[in-house]
Amino acid sequence: MSVQPKLVVVGSIGIDTIETPHEKQLDILGGSASYACAASSFFCRTGMVGVVGSDFPDVHRQSWRAMDIDLDGLQTVAGETFRWHGVYEAHMDNRSTISTELGVFADFSPILPEVYRDAPYLFLGNIEPALQLRVLEQMHHPKFVLVDTMDLWINIARESLLRVIGKVTMLTLNESEARLLTGDHTLLAAAKQLLKMGPEYVLIKKGESGSMLFTQTQIFMLHAYPLEHFKDPTGAGDTFAGGFIGKLAELDECTPSAIRRAMAYGSVVASFGVEEFSLRRLAHIDMKDIEQRYAAFVEMSRIS
Amino acid sequence: MSVQPKLVVVGSIGIDTIETPHEKQLDILGGSASYACAASSFFCRTGMVGVVGSDFPDVHRQSWRAMDIDLDGLQTVAGETFRWHGVYEAHMDNRSTISTELGVFADFSPILPEVYRDAPYLFLGNIEPALQLRVLEQMHHPKFVLVDTMDLWINIARESLLRVIGKVTMLTLNESEARLLTGDHTLLAAAKQLLKMGPEYVLIKKGESGSMLFTQTQIFMLHAYPLEHFKDPTGAGDTFAGGFIGKLAELDECTPSAIRRAMAYGSVVASFGVEEFSLRRLAHIDMKDIEQRYAAFVEMSRIS
Repeated sequence: MSVQPKLVVVGSIGIDTIETPHEKQLDILGGSASYACAASSFFCRTGMVGVVGSDFPDVHRQSWRAMDIDLDGLQTVAGETFRWHGVYEAHMDNRSTISTELGVFADFSPILPEVYRDAPYLFLGNIEPALQLRVLEQMHHPKFVLVDTMDLWINIARESLLRVIGKVTMLTLNESEARLLTGDHTLLAAAKQLLKMGPEYVLIKKGESGSMLFTQTQIFMLHAYPLEHFKDPTGAGDTFAGGFIGKLAELDECTPSAIRRAMAYGSVVASFGVEEFSLRRLAHIDMKDIEQRYAAFVEMSRIS
Repeated sequence: MSVQPKLVVVGSIGIDTIETPHEKQLDILGGSASYACAASSFFCRTGMVGVVGSDFPDVHRQSWRAMDIDLDGLQTVAGETFRWHGVYEAHMDNRSTISTELGVFADFSPILPEVYRDAPYLFLGNIEPALQLRVLEQMHHPKFVLVDTMDLWINIARESLLRVIGKVTMLTLNESEARLLTGDHTLLAAAKQLLKMGPEYVLIKKGESGSMLFTQTQIFMLHAYPLEHFKDPTGAGDTFAGGFIGKLAELDECTPSAIRRAMAYGSVVASFGVEEFSLRRLAHIDMKDIEQRYAAFVEMSRIS
């Protein structure tokens, strides 16, 4: 019997090969939907929408199920799972893509299970805007829709991206993408342009420097939770966004205060995520770990 | 009759030529001491220690006096004032030095007026560590000593820099300098090394991403006050540091809470400073402007 998820997440699911200055990991679970669902599942029942090939290892499905992620929206089709191979530079501030193999992702057409369509929260993870639009059209009346994107879509699918942005509650992107999309350099000037495109909230991600939230009347600035060491920043933005919207769905009130707290929870979950490759660290923490780091984080951010 | 300043600031005083993508300003007042004293003077009586040449325009001395900066520690000697010519790249994230002419700064030997030596607060702005040390040795028993430095001294005067760092209450530097000095990449790992060098507090500046304060037991993270437009980032770090220690001297309690509030005031003053070249904006604001922006800043940084 299907239980309605409180949050639906669509995004990529991939098998990644990742090289950092310290080690190389072959064929590990990745993708925006994978990271976002792992993060949101700490806070609310999450339904995953995505596609994998017939080669997809069942052990990954089992990891997701262990996190209580609903997989009714996950399609398995003949062919190969999306693959990405990336290499990080010396301090992991930058990375280059060695190869991308779309596999079954090339013909992906998301179809939402009936029970997903009434979910109140929706996260359109970073995939082609036309697919994000197709998911959005299948939803009945979501209360809060978050969309993420990337430079690729700004460059090659700007028009459909703007259509999506015009229909969502919150847009998130990183600082260079905010500049690319608007042509403005300061984040405040860029955010003003982005707010004009339709969303009520603009959330600009600044990597290890945190994030900034903009509305027509408010600004909220959050640092990233500081870490002494980390292993792999892949998926940090997806984990942050997933943790954010998962916590917001749990709080189920879209007030400025709830949004601020949810952002801090997202940052905390992301800080755990980067301590290991793939979902390995997220699979081994519990709410006690999260609450402990959240309390420390609030203390570190308090001016007076 | 001399009044004892609450804060003594030593640093460079220069005549700058600055090119941004939008305009070029010739022969404007700059230098670390100039920016820091302008900022601190909003909060407490500040004595400036530095040197200028016989070519130094009297109008600049008048600007400082209008800010109530004590100039008894300012030496005027035969020769030319220190000059710097810099050019900012497209988005003012980076700059290159076109020329530096030391002038009278080459033979500068700071001598503190008697009345300065009992000041409780001291800011050793960014100059050669041997000079910072000479100032420190003339002070009787300062309560709080802040030192700033730069990559140049880390590279060519590491040993005397470490001697200074071992004698101060707080070290401030920017993130790339923290990495250069310690060899650690994450700021938390770098800060742990820096704390071992002696200071009770390490304050790492991250430009438009704010700053982070570290002690043996605490971390505090502050964003920069967000601006839609700015004209010239020159001196922002000195303005931040000067505003910080000026406010701390005013509060006159070196508690974690006072230090956090003082950092936020420093950031607010720096946000005004970059809105115009040189000290032009700082010369035209008052405490009401500062308090207004400070209140907004606290609100923007509050998680819940």
